[in-house]
Amino acid sequence: MTRNVYFDHNATTPLDPVVREAMLPWLGIPANASSRHQFGRSARHALEQAREQVAAAVSAHPSQVVFTGSGTEADNFAIRGICSTLKPGHLAVSAIEHPAVMKPAQALLQRGWKLTKIAVEKTGKVGIRNLEEALQQPAALVSIMLANNETGVVQDIPALSGIARRHGAIMHTDAVQALGKMPLDFNAFGVQAMSLSGHKIGGPQGTGALVLDKRLDIQPLLYGGGQEKGRRSGTENIAAIVGFGMACELLMHRPKVEIELRDELEVGLRALGAAIFGAEAQRVPNTSFFAIPGIDGETLVMALDRAGYAVASGSACSSDSSDPSPVLLAMGISPELAQGAVRVSLGSGNTAQEIQGFLQALRGELSRMQTMSALAV
Amino acid sequence: MTRNVYFDHNATTPLDPVVREAMLPWLGIPANASSRHQFGRSARHALEQAREQVAAAVSAHPSQVVFTGSGTEADNFAIRGICSTLKPGHLAVSAIEHPAVMKPAQALLQRGWKLTKIAVEKTGKVGIRNLEEALQQPAALVSIMLANNETGVVQDIPALSGIARRHGAIMHTDAVQALGKMPLDFNAFGVQAMSLSGHKIGGPQGTGALVLDKRLDIQPLLYGGGQEKGRRSGTENIAAIVGFGMACELLMHRPKVEIELRDELEVGLRALGAAIFGAEAQRVPNTSFFAIPGIDGETLVMALDRAGYAVASGSACSSDSSDPSPVLLAMGISPELAQGAVRVSLGSGNTAQEIQGFLQALRGELSRMQTMSALAV
Repeated sequence: MTRNVYFDHNATTPLDPVVREAMLPWLGIPANASSRHQFGRSARHALEQAREQVAAAVSAHPSQVVFTGSGTEADNFAIRGICSTLKPGHLAVSAIEHPAVMKPAQALLQRGWKLTKIAVEKTGKVGIRNLEEALQQPAALVSIMLANNETGVVQDIPALSGIARRHGAIMHTDAVQALGKMPLDFNAFGVQAMSLSGHKIGGPQGTGALVLDKRLDIQPLLYGGGQEKGRRSGTENIAAIVGFGMACELLMHRPKVEIELRDELEVGLRALGAAIFGAEAQRVPNTSFFAIPGIDGETLVMALDRAGYAVASGSACSSDSSDPSPVLLAMGISPELAQGAVRVSLGSGNTAQEIQGFLQALRGELSRMQTMSALAV
Repeated sequence: MTRNVYFDHNATTPLDPVVREAMLPWLGIPANASSRHQFGRSARHALEQAREQVAAAVSAHPSQVVFTGSGTEADNFAIRGICSTLKPGHLAVSAIEHPAVMKPAQALLQRGWKLTKIAVEKTGKVGIRNLEEALQQPAALVSIMLANNETGVVQDIPALSGIARRHGAIMHTDAVQALGKMPLDFNAFGVQAMSLSGHKIGGPQGTGALVLDKRLDIQPLLYGGGQEKGRRSGTENIAAIVGFGMACELLMHRPKVEIELRDELEVGLRALGAAIFGAEAQRVPNTSFFAIPGIDGETLVMALDRAGYAVASGSACSSDSSDPSPVLLAMGISPELAQGAVRVSLGSGNTAQEIQGFLQALRGELSRMQTMSALAV
């Protein structure tokens, strides 16, 4: 098959070749880090080295890092694990959370919890006042994502966590889409828990982490052999964890080219009449989420795929649904315009030539679609 | 480092070279199976092919297979997911379950459940009468493992599930240590849920599956993007799942040499005065769990490791603890003898020469240890 241009890095990234090299030796030797023999001790050493690399990427201490099987697991672990230590009460999550936060939060309703969705401004940002309002009723836990997977909008987590703290709430942030796209500092963010994922940063699928304030009380989501100091059972996936660690280490050296490319892309998109969502707020540099009035996003994505460009009509995580994005609706975007949403998410391998090729393909598809719709009238 | 002989396949297996080859193409391309573009569709195709391979290994339909991140996750999903759909009641699990079943069962006590540990006979088998006795108080869920990770003892699941069914209980079996070591047939077992793991059969770490009766009601353990038809959220780990599928397919072709090797091993062990646990019952062909009276298991394992042989003093999953094995205690073995337990678990790559080398090393270590203890008197 012809290889298409990949513009969907927020869904998953190709494995970095350096990460792949680091993983390969572990795809062969038996490596159970709980075994006490030579093989087990080597695995344990690799595991702890990766823990240091992940911790360093977010300026945390290695002992704060609990490896999980995915970002989704880290989010579920945070929401359910923290709430399981508390009597049912009130929790508040932003209206634009990823389903990996929103859905476990909603599942807590069955157990007597009350859930508030914190409103966002038109820019896609959670304003100080939005949070203050949600916390008029004291909440035990607040969860606000750092960078949104669809729009790329970045929240002011240090300010928001300060407010949460003043209201006595524990603060979690889903940083899955922020890692590798902006500097992360666990302590400076003032949060008690932060979710990360490997495969959004050139690392492998099947690994994530929850970084924890060591004073935080949390119940495991996975019980069993007592790995990860009893906080997450299951044989550690050494190859994947080694890859995640290496991907974290590479973040410091990776070329940062996406923002110029995105600027170039968005100049071209605006010239085609596109509305760009969240463009007034700070965004991670690789993401552009837009709609062209009157054009259906899903149809455009399929046409662009045939033309050789892999983009998304929203997050891959909800792509089984063709409802308009809840993130855009929460930002006050009309359902009609939201139905047109297309996401381009760039990676460090993308080039200016690919951007120009994409814009040309997009112009071609739009003119074809507009002609067809004119003929249909 | 000199590569030791690996005799700890119940802890984890080396990745089969054919499985590795199948995985490598997926360690590079971006593969989110929820994406609708070309890359996503290829990933989806690979995912569904692997689902067919895993289903075939247990004579189930592909739609019954839910991929998880590990065998531990499959066990937790089964226990918590089934019980979450029910009002708190009574559940019964065998006294020799892996902690991945035992601990989530115990965690349900907090939510008002009552737990019975089903006793086992001296052979390590759950007898019909043991189960009948546990079910004098009707139970909503029964979980009995197919093959024990320490002793290798195989339970008569078709008979036990028949009894569970007659008592109106849902039946789960943890088949993680049985897959690849004996034929598995989901329907013939008469269970409603069965846990599997990839890395015990030459597949990669970080993948497992729960095979489900389609009529069974179960709540997700991981909520989010709705992958696996809403039953297990999180981006699917395509490389690992492809590897798991291939490992399942290879099961049919893999040389079955372990039982002759184990017989040879156990002849040698008995000559050294070893007690072999579970030897009166049917066992999977690769596992030998033994103790030599007066010799500490942990000390022997470390000595054998230095002599070039990787074996375990119990399951890797509880190796942070030096308490005697709860499995052996449940079989009525004395704590003193249980303290001497050593597990050899063979794989298809092991040879008769390695067995003879091991027995020789063992004789050497024993005579050294016995001399030292004689000197200490």
